[in-house]
Amino acid sequence: MEHLGLIGIGVMGGALALNLSQNGHDVSMLDRTSSKMEKVVNESKTDAHIGTLSAYLDVQEFVQSLPIPRAILVLVPSGVPLRSVINSLIPFLEEGDLVADLGNSNWQDTEAHSKNLSEIGLAYLGVGISGGAEGARRGPSIMAGGTEEAWARIAIPLKNASAKFEDFPCCDWFGPGGSGHFIKMVHNGIEYAFMQLIAEAYGMMRDGFEMSAQEIGAIFEDWSEGPLRSYLIEIAAEVALAKDPDTGRPMLDVILDTAGQKGTGRWSVIEGLHLAAPISIITGSVEARNISAETDVRKNGEQIFGPGYRAIREDRAIFLNDLKAAMLAGKIMAYGQGFEILSRASEEHGWNLGLAAISRVWRAGCIIRSGLLDQFAAIFEADAKADLAFTDAFLEEMRAGTESLTRIVPKAISAGHPIPSFSAALSYHNARRSGRVTANMIQALRDRFGAHGFERTDRDRGETFTGPWH
Amino acid sequence: MEHLGLIGIGVMGGALALNLSQNGHDVSMLDRTSSKMEKVVNESKTDAHIGTLSAYLDVQEFVQSLPIPRAILVLVPSGVPLRSVINSLIPFLEEGDLVADLGNSNWQDTEAHSKNLSEIGLAYLGVGISGGAEGARRGPSIMAGGTEEAWARIAIPLKNASAKFEDFPCCDWFGPGGSGHFIKMVHNGIEYAFMQLIAEAYGMMRDGFEMSAQEIGAIFEDWSEGPLRSYLIEIAAEVALAKDPDTGRPMLDVILDTAGQKGTGRWSVIEGLHLAAPISIITGSVEARNISAETDVRKNGEQIFGPGYRAIREDRAIFLNDLKAAMLAGKIMAYGQGFEILSRASEEHGWNLGLAAISRVWRAGCIIRSGLLDQFAAIFEADAKADLAFTDAFLEEMRAGTESLTRIVPKAISAGHPIPSFSAALSYHNARRSGRVTANMIQALRDRFGAHGFERTDRDRGETFTGPWH
Repeated sequence: MEHLGLIGIGVMGGALALNLSQNGHDVSMLDRTSSKMEKVVNESKTDAHIGTLSAYLDVQEFVQSLPIPRAILVLVPSGVPLRSVINSLIPFLEEGDLVADLGNSNWQDTEAHSKNLSEIGLAYLGVGISGGAEGARRGPSIMAGGTEEAWARIAIPLKNASAKFEDFPCCDWFGPGGSGHFIKMVHNGIEYAFMQLIAEAYGMMRDGFEMSAQEIGAIFEDWSEGPLRSYLIEIAAEVALAKDPDTGRPMLDVILDTAGQKGTGRWSVIEGLHLAAPISIITGSVEARNISAETDVRKNGEQIFGPGYRAIREDRAIFLNDLKAAMLAGKIMAYGQGFEILSRASEEHGWNLGLAAISRVWRAGCIIRSGLLDQFAAIFEADAKADLAFTDAFLEEMRAGTESLTRIVPKAISAGHPIPSFSAALSYHNARRSGRVTANMIQALRDRFGAHGFERTDRDRGETFTGPWH
Repeated sequence: MEHLGLIGIGVMGGALALNLSQNGHDVSMLDRTSSKMEKVVNESKTDAHIGTLSAYLDVQEFVQSLPIPRAILVLVPSGVPLRSVINSLIPFLEEGDLVADLGNSNWQDTEAHSKNLSEIGLAYLGVGISGGAEGARRGPSIMAGGTEEAWARIAIPLKNASAKFEDFPCCDWFGPGGSGHFIKMVHNGIEYAFMQLIAEAYGMMRDGFEMSAQEIGAIFEDWSEGPLRSYLIEIAAEVALAKDPDTGRPMLDVILDTAGQKGTGRWSVIEGLHLAAPISIITGSVEARNISAETDVRKNGEQIFGPGYRAIREDRAIFLNDLKAAMLAGKIMAYGQGFEILSRASEEHGWNLGLAAISRVWRAGCIIRSGLLDQFAAIFEADAKADLAFTDAFLEEMRAGTESLTRIVPKAISAGHPIPSFSAALSYHNARRSGRVTANMIQALRDRFGAHGFERTDRDRGETFTGPWH
């Protein structure tokens, strides 16, 4: 069994230390706070742990406790904290030692660290892990990037610690440099989109049909069995059904409607934009979070115009049935937008990412796990460039789901509901199914004011013409 | 009168040279192609030109032709071409000389050039100009950034050459470093949004009511007098009415529906995302261009699902009336999103940008000029942080326009039209007028899986709580 170093014994780090030790690996822990590490050591005694956990406050002692070549996992906030941990390690490391960043780093930072460390003979991996604290403890989904040789040195312990989908470890290496963190970033972008679709569905039920949190929880519970089966729908049911111990009210009703963000959703959108990938459902989710943060603006807006939402005029059962089908189509398209970013990035950066392998690793442990991912893996196995929303496998779901979308989005919008991600999903589908769109107007305008030129419908692609404007 | 250097005698550069010379300034021109410069010199003889135009193929001769301290305007593509022009100039320049980039450079590149040149004693300005070739010839709108002292050296010739709004030159300096190019970038982001709103309106008329290009042109002509009065609506009418000399068909009908982009729209969205500014109408326009480029996907989608758009079920006159009011509200909100990016960037970078001054410079010469900008200038004069869509000045337009939006968006969406920017405008309005949104669900989910914490509606802001999930 391996003996690894682990730096950063917070909620995630502590959980991962216990997980690794339970899988038979020894772990040297380093943190600035000894109490956190003591807590982990104590917890390790209550369960069947076979690996040894040892705690260090001093970097040098920590490094010296590890067998050579060393393998050190780092789980600290990205950016400055990560950089300072790396810098503090360097003086004590020897050629061939390995540092693996398990945080939510920006993939370009990972590329930079990787380059800098390789220049001084150190190996570096950028490893995305998903599943929250619970995942870190019981089995997260793990997406690694860096050199394959470096990966081989920590693959066994991380595969042991990872989530399993029918015995298949949800842990893999995908490509060089920052590609692992890039995949994790896109995972989080898809996560943003799903959470926004859930929040919009919640809002239509709450404000369109005056349903209680309890009633809404029951709907999500119903959805979580069947084609929508997924972790996020499951926990949406759970949080909707939870009661506030202080007031006895539904927990959702006492939580402030201002969403935070740590950057990975926004980064996904920015990367998608650089790659000219259509990513509107993810974008809608970032927009909604941004507006949610503007509480003063929203209060002011409500005073001037009255609230956006009113009762939705439709039979509740019919609407909820459509909402369920629309949610499924929306999810398939949101996954599709995520995979499109990955596919373009892979080409752009020469990463040769396998979308089937990524789907497999997302089947368990991570936040966006769902019943769909096993199907995606099979689809991408058969066609590495498959367009999920257009595959035969989902034809029925997409037909029914987009018809449902076409019914519910106008109804909710007529009743003033802000549903940016459902709206974006429908516009995305309708644009992608239109052999003829309206960009000829844009090209005409651009040529008229800027002499940018345009192509013609009756000539070969690539030939450029200008209009008779002057 | 001043004697300036001008590098890059393409469509824009040639037009600007003639404009400057017509305003009495001498211009030394530098280009790799002598025929382009000859054409400009010849053209200068046909009109009342009082400044001298001289052509150079050699950098050193060009530089030596200019009075010291020199002022050199550069109008070449941004990125590598600009960098190579700057590098070729440096050996011949002397301390105190000034280089001004008039291209569409990324503002961060401008910051970098500015820093590098100041280190060797050269002044640098990043100057955005808008108005296309026609604007460069007859009077563009000019947005400068850099040091105020450097600006003072070219302010007079550029103000002379600029567009005038009732004798007021649409040319100003706004702040340090890359702020001028940042403002131009946001100008282009707003331009993207307007063009997309126009294209969507065109599509609803074309595919929803089977209106001919001629009929649509007449509608835009009607709109271009009254509250929607603006350059882009004017030229939308013009291009819709134009006939193809080759086939006799409406020009719009022979232009391929695949929109290009050069980056500034995308950059606006990226900057907006970094600043957490809601910018969904601009985002919708970038998305639409990206999907328009995917012709194979769209053909495939149409084969599988049939085209998105069908006839819109509504009386045409009623719909067009609503469309006009909705367009006005959409435009006000799109301007608002642009100004929000500027306002946040100004704070973030300490630029102290004046939104009233920016509005004034956009009143004439630029692509997004419209009857609204003079009103905006007055509004920002009175309240530097005004929220355009919420001001008393537009209360009536916003009430009527958003009611119209609430009628047309559902109708067009029910008929399968992809209208991402109109949809985004409505969602944006409805979210911003909702004192209560649905981000409490997002916060609950984030706390449930990631222990991110949330604020409570019944406690002070800033206090963080966790839920009773486990």
